[in-house]
Amino acid sequence: MSSVYGKKIKISIFGQSHSPAIGVNIDGLPAGIKLDMDELRVFMKRRSPGKDDISTSRTEADEPEIICGIVNGVTCGAPLTVVIRNTDARSSDYSQLRDTPRPSHSDYAAHVKFNGNHDISGGGHFSGRLTAPLCAAGGICLQILKSSGINICAHILQTGDAKDDSFDMAGVSLKDFMAISENPLPVLRREAGEKMKQEILNAKEKGDSIGGIIECAAVGIPAGIGDPMFDGIENRIAQIVFGIPAVKGIEFGNGFAAAGNFGSKNNDPFFVDEGKIKTRTNNSGGITGGITNGMPVIFRAAFKPTPSIGIQQESVSLSRLENTVLKINGRHDPCIIVRAVPCVEAAAAIALYDAYLDR
Amino acid sequence: MSSVYGKKIKISIFGQSHSPAIGVNIDGLPAGIKLDMDELRVFMKRRSPGKDDISTSRTEADEPEIICGIVNGVTCGAPLTVVIRNTDARSSDYSQLRDTPRPSHSDYAAHVKFNGNHDISGGGHFSGRLTAPLCAAGGICLQILKSSGINICAHILQTGDAKDDSFDMAGVSLKDFMAISENPLPVLRREAGEKMKQEILNAKEKGDSIGGIIECAAVGIPAGIGDPMFDGIENRIAQIVFGIPAVKGIEFGNGFAAAGNFGSKNNDPFFVDEGKIKTRTNNSGGITGGITNGMPVIFRAAFKPTPSIGIQQESVSLSRLENTVLKINGRHDPCIIVRAVPCVEAAAAIALYDAYLDR
Amino acid sequence: MSSVYGKKIKISIFGQSHSPAIGVNIDGLPAGIKLDMDELRVFMKRRSPGKDDISTSRTEADEPEIICGIVNGVTCGAPLTVVIRNTDARSSDYSQLRDTPRPSHSDYAAHVKFNGNHDISGGGHFSGRLTAPLCAAGGICLQILKSSGINICAHILQTGDAKDDSFDMAGVSLKDFMAISENPLPVLRREAGEKMKQEILNAKEKGDSIGGIIECAAVGIPAGIGDPMFDGIENRIAQIVFGIPAVKGIEFGNGFAAAGNFGSKNNDPFFVDEGKIKTRTNNSGGITGGITNGMPVIFRAAFKPTPSIGIQQESVSLSRLENTVLKINGRHDPCIIVRAVPCVEAAAAIALYDAYLDR
Amino acid sequence: MSSVYGKKIKISIFGQSHSPAIGVNIDGLPAGIKLDMDELRVFMKRRSPGKDDISTSRTEADEPEIICGIVNGVTCGAPLTVVIRNTDARSSDYSQLRDTPRPSHSDYAAHVKFNGNHDISGGGHFSGRLTAPLCAAGGICLQILKSSGINICAHILQTGDAKDDSFDMAGVSLKDFMAISENPLPVLRREAGEKMKQEILNAKEKGDSIGGIIECAAVGIPAGIGDPMFDGIENRIAQIVFGIPAVKGIEFGNGFAAAGNFGSKNNDPFFVDEGKIKTRTNNSGGITGGITNGMPVIFRAAFKPTPSIGIQQESVSLSRLENTVLKINGRHDPCIIVRAVPCVEAAAAIALYDAYLDR
Repeated sequence: MSSVYGKKIKISIFGQSHSPAIGVNIDGLPAGIKLDMDELRVFMKRRSPGKDDISTSRTEADEPEIICGIVNGVTCGAPLTVVIRNTDARSSDYSQLRDTPRPSHSDYAAHVKFNGNHDISGGGHFSGRLTAPLCAAGGICLQILKSSGINICAHILQTGDAKDDSFDMAGVSLKDFMAISENPLPVLRREAGEKMKQEILNAKEKGDSIGGIIECAAVGIPAGIGDPMFDGIENRIAQIVFGIPAVKGIEFGNGFAAAGNFGSKNNDPFFVDEGKIKTRTNNSGGITGGITNGMPVIFRAAFKPTPSIGIQQESVSLSRLENTVLKINGRHDPCIIVRAVPCVEAAAAIALYDAYLDR
Repeated sequence: MSSVYGKKIKISIFGQSHSPAIGVNIDGLPAGIKLDMDELRVFMKRRSPGKDDISTSRTEADEPEIICGIVNGVTCGAPLTVVIRNTDARSSDYSQLRDTPRPSHSDYAAHVKFNGNHDISGGGHFSGRLTAPLCAAGGICLQILKSSGINICAHILQTGDAKDDSFDMAGVSLKDFMAISENPLPVLRREAGEKMKQEILNAKEKGDSIGGIIECAAVGIPAGIGDPMFDGIENRIAQIVFGIPAVKGIEFGNGFAAAGNFGSKNNDPFFVDEGKIKTRTNNSGGITGGITNGMPVIFRAAFKPTPSIGIQQESVSLSRLENTVLKINGRHDPCIIVRAVPCVEAAAAIALYDAYLDR
Repeated sequence: MSSVYGKKIKISIFGQSHSPAIGVNIDGLPAGIKLDMDELRVFMKRRSPGKDDISTSRTEADEPEIICGIVNGVTCGAPLTVVIRNTDARSSDYSQLRDTPRPSHSDYAAHVKFNGNHDISGGGHFSGRLTAPLCAAGGICLQILKSSGINICAHILQTGDAKDDSFDMAGVSLKDFMAISENPLPVLRREAGEKMKQEILNAKEKGDSIGGIIECAAVGIPAGIGDPMFDGIENRIAQIVFGIPAVKGIEFGNGFAAAGNFGSKNNDPFFVDEGKIKTRTNNSGGITGGITNGMPVIFRAAFKPTPSIGIQQESVSLSRLENTVLKINGRHDPCIIVRAVPCVEAAAAIALYDAYLDR
Repeated sequence: MSSVYGKKIKISIFGQSHSPAIGVNIDGLPAGIKLDMDELRVFMKRRSPGKDDISTSRTEADEPEIICGIVNGVTCGAPLTVVIRNTDARSSDYSQLRDTPRPSHSDYAAHVKFNGNHDISGGGHFSGRLTAPLCAAGGICLQILKSSGINICAHILQTGDAKDDSFDMAGVSLKDFMAISENPLPVLRREAGEKMKQEILNAKEKGDSIGGIIECAAVGIPAGIGDPMFDGIENRIAQIVFGIPAVKGIEFGNGFAAAGNFGSKNNDPFFVDEGKIKTRTNNSGGITGGITNGMPVIFRAAFKPTPSIGIQQESVSLSRLENTVLKINGRHDPCIIVRAVPCVEAAAAIALYDAYLDR
């Protein structure tokens, strides 16, 4: 495993789905930053499971304990470590999965890599549960960025057949972020959220799961951040976002849609607006040459449906090397897309804050 | 800039479009590997400009000089450095662009980041020219991987409205790679290539440019390679592929299409085939949990149209901070997608070889 | 702060002297390694304070809790995190030190770096207390190395005027290690230890402190480990050993003594011994060209006397920017050299195991 | 090999003693820095061989060609690469050494590590020749630091039995640096240099070699630079200085001498001098807790005698695995200590500039 990310700040994520605790160490955080623990808890709560009928029934308080790195609530320059105890690690039987890997889950690849020694319970270190410490670190970065006038917000763009509106890439603003936060699901258009919920419940009922797309915007980032060729903003965000389980694609600005476009249509014309240089469109997603240009940074991340489903599937017996079938009983998560929204925000915040410090 | 990539091998790319030379240093290459310089030249030739009527008219021999790292054609364990002299660095006038940035080009972002000191000639270090050393390093990695039974090949999936067939993700094989190599353009279906050429020539005639999508496959990779959460195969490939100028999106397996899919459809069922564990479909693109599962690794990269076009565009004067228009004269590249194919293969080879060594 | 070390394994150390807890995260540890927790506790106990009359009176159980990274006592490939609760963090008054920095302590430099926000209590993250997690990580590496036939042992070579014998660099063996472990202080010659204890008690009585030198040997390391120019064995060991508070010098083989030597005397002649290539002397300390040569790796680390003493010293008031005097009351550590021995072993083990994995 | 160093700037050194060229790539150099090429040549000339009768007779012009990274002599933010052609790579016969390794040279360790594929000619990548690109990179860093008021200078403290005065650690100044530069050998006391020259010539006459100690001082560094625990100033300088061939020890401030000292003697008392906080002594060598305290940074590096000597030595035949003797004909270097002085300055400059940028 290699669960360390970053250059100026180094985020080390640790823990397994059913280990006594999970957490994150943030090395390199500047001193003198006041943290708002209530705000952090509220942010992490958006990710934690067990709150409603459209996610896993596992219940976790996700109470972050900061065991070092602060003095009286202010960062002191020492590494800051957050520990989160696992409280609902049920002793359900995972032995079946040790011999019969779940299709499209990490089970088989991990079995080969770790020679059968990986922690299979609840997905071990591959579990979506590890996004809790990601959100702890990201929540801290979000607070710091906000105090510098940089705000990040994501919404569900699609799940199954239900689609929300896209951000207006050149014009996205805090007003949109506010609108998203006021809806039951994180979407721009409330009805889109209702349709999404229905899609998720349908999948759940069938013991199935569905994927989705999350769109994320960061506004207020100054121009000139990012280090091409390999630590540009796209490289940095991509490297961390693919660390969120189930992500299979990422695009910036108009991304894949640019492929069918002409330069004359795709280019973002410059203009001067009250003494500031802006672009009329933002097909670049706020990034040119790997460097921010001062416009909102926009990206989309594609999530595959969670591979762990309640429907019988073809699999193999690793020990007997023969075909078999797999039917998983017990709780499963029909759709992670709602809880993935803060994870994407957290990942973006970590990447952007690290790039910002590295300027 | 941060043009260093890799963990076990460290690739440092250097040079500007119009500097005396460009090149790459590869640190950490194992000793005892025999390099085929003719094969490397053939590979690099696929990327070099000036060969036909659908790319820039700049002519570069792209002759790689290995100035160290080998003894009698065999790697000696010391860093291997390739230097490529720039021979057709025309003294055309770039001073216009210093004050009037090209829309969607790196000009403005670089101006802010480097306080006006960046090399504007030919795009400086942001130029597509820097993919020549990327291909030099990648060409070496491709040779090494091939000798271990791992083969990588990419094709143009789309440019403008012209589309090639997709790879059969579970069944892609060397036969497909051979077919691609035999077509005038790197496509599976020759007629798709002809249509693409027409699209490119149309754009060229208008002084415009078009984007495209490249699909890449790696076959023969053993299961168990990759280091989640942040150095998994997807993270690693994404980090390097976004280092290729103009890339705005990447997806693995069925990527964004998975978002609208059910788990029961998207999961890849396991089966045993002559004693080997395989999956019937390969929607995972050969990667689960960030680790290879032994199936072909498949990804797609989206390229925006080159921002440098011959059509008049809106821009600003940086010195006067007012709106203006920009009309670029001189050669421009209507479409980089053909020459980008070996770049994508090179990037994939570097990432996969580095991950392979890091296992 | 930058408390992350390593390439194949990444050690992140966290905590402050008086924070709720301290600990270490080890990322990249191979799967399938059985850990002996009793052996780890015994090793860590050698470092922990409060056991005798020659160290600080702070009492810490230093009970390591492994909160993740193992399943049934065996590493699972996920990051392994050890948390150690601080139990004897007395609320003594450190406010005096905030304005009046201790001479030669980190106080003033940290004040400037962190703009007054650093944790001053007990030295914060600069405290020798942070060697507890270093020993936790090192103790694990020592166990792994031992199972590969690599053993590491250090002894006090000097403290004040009391000196132990040096290792026979070419002939040092497990017999010597056994002898060291059987003495009350970690020395080769028991009487040297008695003289050292007297030196330490003398210093303690005066409210003063004394420095020392620790010599460390690693036997059983195969030839061919190390990555020059900048990740050779000397570079790697030096980088981590200077992370132990109070270290001001390091030398390998005959080190500084080589400066006055002729090549004909200093070179280690090769010979064949029962089919194995060895050297008759080992002035190189087992390392040539940054790479192990199969002979014992030998180095010495110099520790300055602990700067925190009970004697009145000249200092300044940071707020008033004027001269003043400082007299510290309360417990202080007259000599850290005894407890530093396992720290040096731990650091060596981490560096050598990381280099070993990186081969 | 792992010849990449640094965090904010990444120095990649490449080349072998007898490869067509050697050089260095510097990634991450800020834009807008005007380089003085004449000054760089003068600096590099201090290291280049063939100028006098006390070093190797190999003659190298060491002409640095900057092939990219600058525009009109000013850094442009792109990686800066210096290439130095090898001109006097004589085709003398090194085949003897392939089977009969030189005692205490890298030959044997490299043979094992690279399975016999390493470049043996002239020492390959292990050669002192690789300090030429180190000096190129360091010379550039020295210029940049100087423009920020930070000056670095080293002198020979000892070679064989001849000793120079030590720096006055608290009071060292540009006046001392001037004095050193005006002597024929880089020493504070001219007669010490004469005695050193005699020692070197004596060794040369016997076909032998001698070691030495270099002392280096950096003045003008602000307080607050350095990132403990593992990227403190001592860690950083040690990591790079051990990259200079033949270095076997390093100490900061009074280093090993502190081991026999009391805290009350060793601590550096603070006082206010014209509104600035200073210390009366500087036993800390300008570094406490891994962070600069504003006093001069002082360190010493011990160099072993060059292992390649003209006197017959015991060795082994690697192919026959039996004892033999080795007598090397041809030029050898009796003492590298004079030419090592700029190398130590270069290494210190790179480490300190990188730490400075990383603040």
